[in-house]
Amino acid sequence: MKKPNELIPLKIIASGTALPESRVYSSDLDLKFNKPNGFVQKRSGIEYRYHSDYEASPAKLAAQALHNTLENNQIPPNSIDLLISASAVPIQALPFSAAHILKESQLKAGIACFDINSSCVSFISALNVASGLLAINQYRRIAIVSSEMASRGIDWSHQESSLIFGDGAACMIVEKGDGQSGIVTYQHETYPEGLELCEIRAGGTRKNLRTGMEDSDFLFQMQGKPLFKLTASLIEDFTERVLASANLTMPEIDTVIPHQASHLGLEHIRKRLNIKDERFVNIYRHRGNQVAASIPSALHEAIMTNRYYGRDYVMLLGTAAGLSLSEMILKP
Amino acid sequence: MKKPNELIPLKIIASGTALPESRVYSSDLDLKFNKPNGFVQKRSGIEYRYHSDYEASPAKLAAQALHNTLENNQIPPNSIDLLISASAVPIQALPFSAAHILKESQLKAGIACFDINSSCVSFISALNVASGLLAINQYRRIAIVSSEMASRGIDWSHQESSLIFGDGAACMIVEKGDGQSGIVTYQHETYPEGLELCEIRAGGTRKNLRTGMEDSDFLFQMQGKPLFKLTASLIEDFTERVLASANLTMPEIDTVIPHQASHLGLEHIRKRLNIKDERFVNIYRHRGNQVAASIPSALHEAIMTNRYYGRDYVMLLGTAAGLSLSEMILKP
Repeated sequence: MKKPNELIPLKIIASGTALPESRVYSSDLDLKFNKPNGFVQKRSGIEYRYHSDYEASPAKLAAQALHNTLENNQIPPNSIDLLISASAVPIQALPFSAAHILKESQLKAGIACFDINSSCVSFISALNVASGLLAINQYRRIAIVSSEMASRGIDWSHQESSLIFGDGAACMIVEKGDGQSGIVTYQHETYPEGLELCEIRAGGTRKNLRTGMEDSDFLFQMQGKPLFKLTASLIEDFTERVLASANLTMPEIDTVIPHQASHLGLEHIRKRLNIKDERFVNIYRHRGNQVAASIPSALHEAIMTNRYYGRDYVMLLGTAAGLSLSEMILKP
Repeated sequence: MKKPNELIPLKIIASGTALPESRVYSSDLDLKFNKPNGFVQKRSGIEYRYHSDYEASPAKLAAQALHNTLENNQIPPNSIDLLISASAVPIQALPFSAAHILKESQLKAGIACFDINSSCVSFISALNVASGLLAINQYRRIAIVSSEMASRGIDWSHQESSLIFGDGAACMIVEKGDGQSGIVTYQHETYPEGLELCEIRAGGTRKNLRTGMEDSDFLFQMQGKPLFKLTASLIEDFTERVLASANLTMPEIDTVIPHQASHLGLEHIRKRLNIKDERFVNIYRHRGNQVAASIPSALHEAIMTNRYYGRDYVMLLGTAAGLSLSEMILKP
């Protein structure tokens, strides 16, 4: 197995995001739910989040994040030799989302592409997979795109979950680099006892035209309290294992980039793991929970606000429907 | 980039399959479609395929292939440290299929897992990803499971496509090995001009309760002739590029394991690429098109009939919804 502190080469060379045009303010939702002004913002911790029109193409939103990243960093589209789509909810049951994104992109036709899915931590899984494919010299420059239109699965009759979701996409371009940057340690654990605590049951072989389905099968089904309880029971020991595998302690981590699950969840994790507020990247107030797009969006924010490059250690951290825990420590 | 004939270590240490109980004979379908006896078998090239009951669990079928593989080869379940689900159609929109399979499995809770999807060639993508993760010593023993219940998406009003699909699952256990076995070359190309030639439109952010959907969005939509035409226009040059990258010619490939798309498609590819009949693994007559489970099922068949181990070169070959082409040459 990998020796402690042996770096797996991986360099993020560019990042970017895309958001739908329309902001949904919590004050708009106060009116929708017939609540006093300020109720939804207090309850959700969100000032505004972005929701797409129902006509908008999920593949185009993903391609927009990709193009923003390439154009802002003057990277030629034809220099990308692998596209990975790393989202939780697919565009459709068949074919895979990366083919849809490729169609809307300026990348060259004939490129290699596939999807990776581990729900809200898909982006971390994709980074790990990318480091392996770069190590075997299969590809030189990989684009990873996480794109979500969570608004299309909101159950507006379920107040708790309906307030938190926002749409968006983020992209990272990675290379092997010079060996000074890379993955210090990475662990992913899945505990399927929590499988039903957050799900959208339709969409595949389980609930469909043949087996029967209801409207609710198309919407996020979340059991907030048991989900919180199971996560809380696992996260501390998991984080200790991850840090120990790299001979590091939390105070040595310069920046922590968490999945933006909920404002109470974020604050709970920050306190429980003894992370200083200024080291904890929180974009929740103006994005909400963007499912798998949250982690790369927060990572892009860290890059743009000088909390990534030049630092010693950066941790990506997420809990996800599954229930999965994922943490990666990067040397930027 | 990788030098020609530099092997990426990868060893298949065990394989297995699972099938639903009920066989659907083509003669049964003659009755269903009110056709003369023999019509469907002649048309489809299939004697029988397997279809699951609508009550059957897709996660259990996948776990069954995994358990058959582990038990028949006396591999302890707790020796697996990563589970990859490599299927085209997910179990549901959220969470990812590997978590569902893990729940039904005897693997230890807390294991790492994720899905890889490149439609019908998902298994080849997963083998490639596994070789990268083994190279960086992230995992030592990886289980890859491809499982499909295509019968749940059959459009019985579309005669051409309704005859060909069968359900099933297959599993491969892979390790790094001693370096004598591995990937000689691998290429995947996606041409999204063919995106709409084979699809199931519902199941994600594109067609759902919010954006609107029809019954037909839940069923395989196939345009057989244009799909065949596009594939035929690409497969020869693609195969030449793959063989050239390894300095090999087709007569040097001992066994070719194709995706089992259709009987005419199989025969067309075999003739077009000058592959001898006895080197071409064809399980179509008793399985039909099992989507992403076809390639690992045919590979298992090759292993069981002494057409894999001990050979110099084995090629996996598939075309897939996307439209994707994928070929991998293995040294067993």
